[in-house]
Amino acid sequence: MAQIIADRRDIDFVLFEQLDTEALTKEEKYKGFNRKTFDLIINEARAFALKELLPINAEGDREGVTLEDGVVKVPACYHRAHKLYLEGEWTSLEEPEALGGQGLPPNVARAAQEYMIGGNYTCVNYANFGHGTGKMIHLFGTEEQKQLFVKKLYTAQWAGGMLLTEPEAGSDVGALTTEAIPNEDGTYSLTGTKIFITNGDHDLSENIISPVLARIKGAPAGTKGISIFIVPKFWVNPDGSLGDRNDIVCTGIEEKMGIHGSACCTMTLGGKGQCRGLLLGQENQGMKIMFHMMNEARLGVGFQAFMHASVSYLYALNYARERVQGKEIGGAKDAPPVPIIRHPDVRRMLTWMKAHVDGLRSFIYYTQTLIAKVGLACSDEECRYHQGLLDLFTPLVKAYCAQRGFDVTVQAMQVYGGYGYIKEYPVEQQLRDCKIASIYEGTDGIQSMDLLARKIVMDGGKAFGNFIAKVQETIVAAKGSEAIAPMAASLEEAAGRLAETAAVLGKAVVSPNVKAAFAHSFPFLEVMGDVIMGWMLLWRAKVASDKLAAGAKGKDAPFYQGQLQTAEFFIQTVLPCTLGKMASIARMNDAAVRMPEEGFSS
Amino acid sequence: MAQIIADRRDIDFVLFEQLDTEALTKEEKYKGFNRKTFDLIINEARAFALKELLPINAEGDREGVTLEDGVVKVPACYHRAHKLYLEGEWTSLEEPEALGGQGLPPNVARAAQEYMIGGNYTCVNYANFGHGTGKMIHLFGTEEQKQLFVKKLYTAQWAGGMLLTEPEAGSDVGALTTEAIPNEDGTYSLTGTKIFITNGDHDLSENIISPVLARIKGAPAGTKGISIFIVPKFWVNPDGSLGDRNDIVCTGIEEKMGIHGSACCTMTLGGKGQCRGLLLGQENQGMKIMFHMMNEARLGVGFQAFMHASVSYLYALNYARERVQGKEIGGAKDAPPVPIIRHPDVRRMLTWMKAHVDGLRSFIYYTQTLIAKVGLACSDEECRYHQGLLDLFTPLVKAYCAQRGFDVTVQAMQVYGGYGYIKEYPVEQQLRDCKIASIYEGTDGIQSMDLLARKIVMDGGKAFGNFIAKVQETIVAAKGSEAIAPMAASLEEAAGRLAETAAVLGKAVVSPNVKAAFAHSFPFLEVMGDVIMGWMLLWRAKVASDKLAAGAKGKDAPFYQGQLQTAEFFIQTVLPCTLGKMASIARMNDAAVRMPEEGFSS
Repeated sequence: MAQIIADRRDIDFVLFEQLDTEALTKEEKYKGFNRKTFDLIINEARAFALKELLPINAEGDREGVTLEDGVVKVPACYHRAHKLYLEGEWTSLEEPEALGGQGLPPNVARAAQEYMIGGNYTCVNYANFGHGTGKMIHLFGTEEQKQLFVKKLYTAQWAGGMLLTEPEAGSDVGALTTEAIPNEDGTYSLTGTKIFITNGDHDLSENIISPVLARIKGAPAGTKGISIFIVPKFWVNPDGSLGDRNDIVCTGIEEKMGIHGSACCTMTLGGKGQCRGLLLGQENQGMKIMFHMMNEARLGVGFQAFMHASVSYLYALNYARERVQGKEIGGAKDAPPVPIIRHPDVRRMLTWMKAHVDGLRSFIYYTQTLIAKVGLACSDEECRYHQGLLDLFTPLVKAYCAQRGFDVTVQAMQVYGGYGYIKEYPVEQQLRDCKIASIYEGTDGIQSMDLLARKIVMDGGKAFGNFIAKVQETIVAAKGSEAIAPMAASLEEAAGRLAETAAVLGKAVVSPNVKAAFAHSFPFLEVMGDVIMGWMLLWRAKVASDKLAAGAKGKDAPFYQGQLQTAEFFIQTVLPCTLGKMASIARMNDAAVRMPEEGFSS
Repeated sequence: MAQIIADRRDIDFVLFEQLDTEALTKEEKYKGFNRKTFDLIINEARAFALKELLPINAEGDREGVTLEDGVVKVPACYHRAHKLYLEGEWTSLEEPEALGGQGLPPNVARAAQEYMIGGNYTCVNYANFGHGTGKMIHLFGTEEQKQLFVKKLYTAQWAGGMLLTEPEAGSDVGALTTEAIPNEDGTYSLTGTKIFITNGDHDLSENIISPVLARIKGAPAGTKGISIFIVPKFWVNPDGSLGDRNDIVCTGIEEKMGIHGSACCTMTLGGKGQCRGLLLGQENQGMKIMFHMMNEARLGVGFQAFMHASVSYLYALNYARERVQGKEIGGAKDAPPVPIIRHPDVRRMLTWMKAHVDGLRSFIYYTQTLIAKVGLACSDEECRYHQGLLDLFTPLVKAYCAQRGFDVTVQAMQVYGGYGYIKEYPVEQQLRDCKIASIYEGTDGIQSMDLLARKIVMDGGKAFGNFIAKVQETIVAAKGSEAIAPMAASLEEAAGRLAETAAVLGKAVVSPNVKAAFAHSFPFLEVMGDVIMGWMLLWRAKVASDKLAAGAKGKDAPFYQGQLQTAEFFIQTVLPCTLGKMASIARMNDAAVRMPEEGFSS
């Protein structure tokens, strides 16, 4: 099963045929690269993941994390892989070399990370997690803070964290009660308890640097009174050496349905002694600063879910090709049984899965190109254009990938039948691991509210308009190819209806009918995601159609043919359901809002 | 949280307001009962489940099943509950008292079992599982076989089993290779290996009677050469006493994602010594006979999934009422945070869950009334009518309940947010336990093929036509109530479109386009299920609307109001999506079928 974890041919298709990633090498920033160096890095990532990560994925799930005598221990098998991962310099691939990265374009970094995350998400996340913390310090820290922390976080010599949630402050971050009191020396003393802290403590790194949201004594209530602090596990002296153990302690770990290799910690700050922290940026700017990390993390969560889907799809596909069961429908009575991939209902599931895996991959990589473009020299207007699309797409990458990614893992289990439900086969772990993606980093419901209340309407709806215009560009191009023109017409109808739906909801959300609007924000996120899938798949089909017209041969021919069928399946079979859901949203029925509270049960 | 496991008010509503279950007490068969005795039995079931079953549900999940030295051990805590369950005579409630049952109408039996299955499915399933085996022997066994086995199976003094699946014969039962050779004494010697055998062996019962599908040496290939045998773990002497240990042995158990308390066994027959079995019925009639048990089991699996949904919904509802987080949308700026049930997106999820839990309950109980009617004196025509609907609905109860039941557990986890994902809270187990329902007893894909290829077209489409006519009856009645007339109109449109869709698919399935038809069989099952939900909810709304018009007071008022909002939500928000899915099916796109096999991945 050569292509397990991720389909390399498809990665290359997205990077170099759908998106012109090679063009980036003409930019000063990426001039050190060419197609060959990109290939090499992705090859190495794949080799590493297959050798070191995938083989311990199930073991990490079985062993899980333990907390004994205040020490959080990750699965024993993670230590070797983590060490080798750091030695291979696989963290912060898109950061400059001077800061410990490789200076890769973001979408090529994602390509390499497909194998890492797909091979063993919980294991590599310990190393990858420091980037977000490092980035915030890079953007908002003092020179001294940057010198002390950024490179060590980017290279994962020190691990990072993300301490937001409290027992009474989950989705409502503004309700947090962790308190910071200024000390004479310019540091702050923090007291409070944070829960559900991914990788909050562990035994893989010599130090862990936790960004912590807290309220400085006397600061206003709500989000506007929140500041952010850098809280190291071991205090960092001005020369970079490690000082005393800080009083930030793991006081509990959660037993979860999945991601067993990931430490989910309760962290107590200043419970016994002094927990010292450094203010990052200005007072009361914590939410603004933290959103930089949260946006990165949201894109990361979507990517995680996508990888569970990608891995699950390939497992299921492989199983369907090998599992012989039942006669072919319409075949001769005495014909021998066939691999189940021949059965229409199995094909329905596989094609559905492929459509979403392909579409999500293109969407994720496309979003990464927006990051690249914002990072290149561009006019203010260009920057705003790309940043606008990136902001618009962020809740979709997070929530739509989480939703459809999970659905793909569920379908994969169904393809396996009974074998899918048992631990001897790999998909049940994928399903359990994937489920968290709809919950953490802001639930998918929160993402849909962000989409409706902020992203759709921001800047007078400009980004949303630009998105529809991009879809229309693809439609116009596709209409020029006879074979795919009918798909283009179907997508055009859906995109038009999406714009109408957005207009209806956008008005409702600033009307007295606001509650009804929010009762449809999540379905709206789903239909917008569907249209994006249709867009990405039509775009793929256009590329494939051109290649076939140009006489693609050998293995390429069925690959491109597969692109056409996948797009056709999605656009002619899934999108009609999406139109139904748009009709549902347009009715904007408010029965759920009107339901008396006692009506839910007696 | 008084209503945990199941909503008693809603059970009573279905039994006594939607369905006129009391009318059954006028029948000779049920004359020993009245409303009070029904209430008493359901009360007792609830009390038993809350005291003995629910408290050990999580413990059984943690402990799981072990196999040591050939002995299968269920979770230790199950022993006491199992013993008390048998003492309370909770098995085979709908069977006659003379055979160890209580003679209850099937839907009242379901009502009692809601608490048992909802409280601890895997635990009570050991006791409930014998009924299907007993029923087959009752229907097809010799007088001696009946005397020896039926009552002991109905009362669960002996446990039952169901040995169909083999490593190379899963969905394709006809491929099985277990062989039976006649002995001189009229018994048969069996050799073979069966896998995924639920409760195949365990330490709860003094004997286990396994119905085994096998091929008598020389019998034809495929399903037409399959016979069924009664294979006791301990041989049963003609006087009913136990004889030698039979060579039917558990040689492995599976580690599963869920239902950890349930033993999933590999059973080896005749591996070392002689495995003797008794032929049940005639030679080569095994599939026909087994289908009696399979149909019962399919209804049971749908019921299991429904219960996971019902329990999960009530947990999530309770959490949403208690969890305070975030300000009310549109509320004052300084208003205090509110329970999350006030947030529109949470209400969307809860109402969606309630609509399906309510609709599924009504559908399941309605199906049980069909069983009752077939069991009462009726003309051939009446019997065929009820049996036709029962046959038509069986794949839907199995697969639609499994699908939407699982979706409800997923939504419940989402309502809990991070708490939903951890084992400290109960919904993650419900999700894991529920997932098996879409897989065992014939995958949901198999059910959709049964629905399309057999049930829709059987008897010239008569049962399907009768079903649509029943829906129309409800629509006509509802049109008479002003408040719900618009819902009736919407459902009428959907039911009409369903009939058209069935006609299109029914034609395609006997055409050269048969593969394309089967590529849409599962979505067809889903849309038919949706229309059934709409039917059941409109029916409920009609009852509620009449009660409100008659001046319902106190707690009844919001309960009935809740029925109206739930029906409205489903019909005006979910059914438009269903119409979209019907439009998708009607296009009958065959891209999934045309996809080149190498097109799925390179």
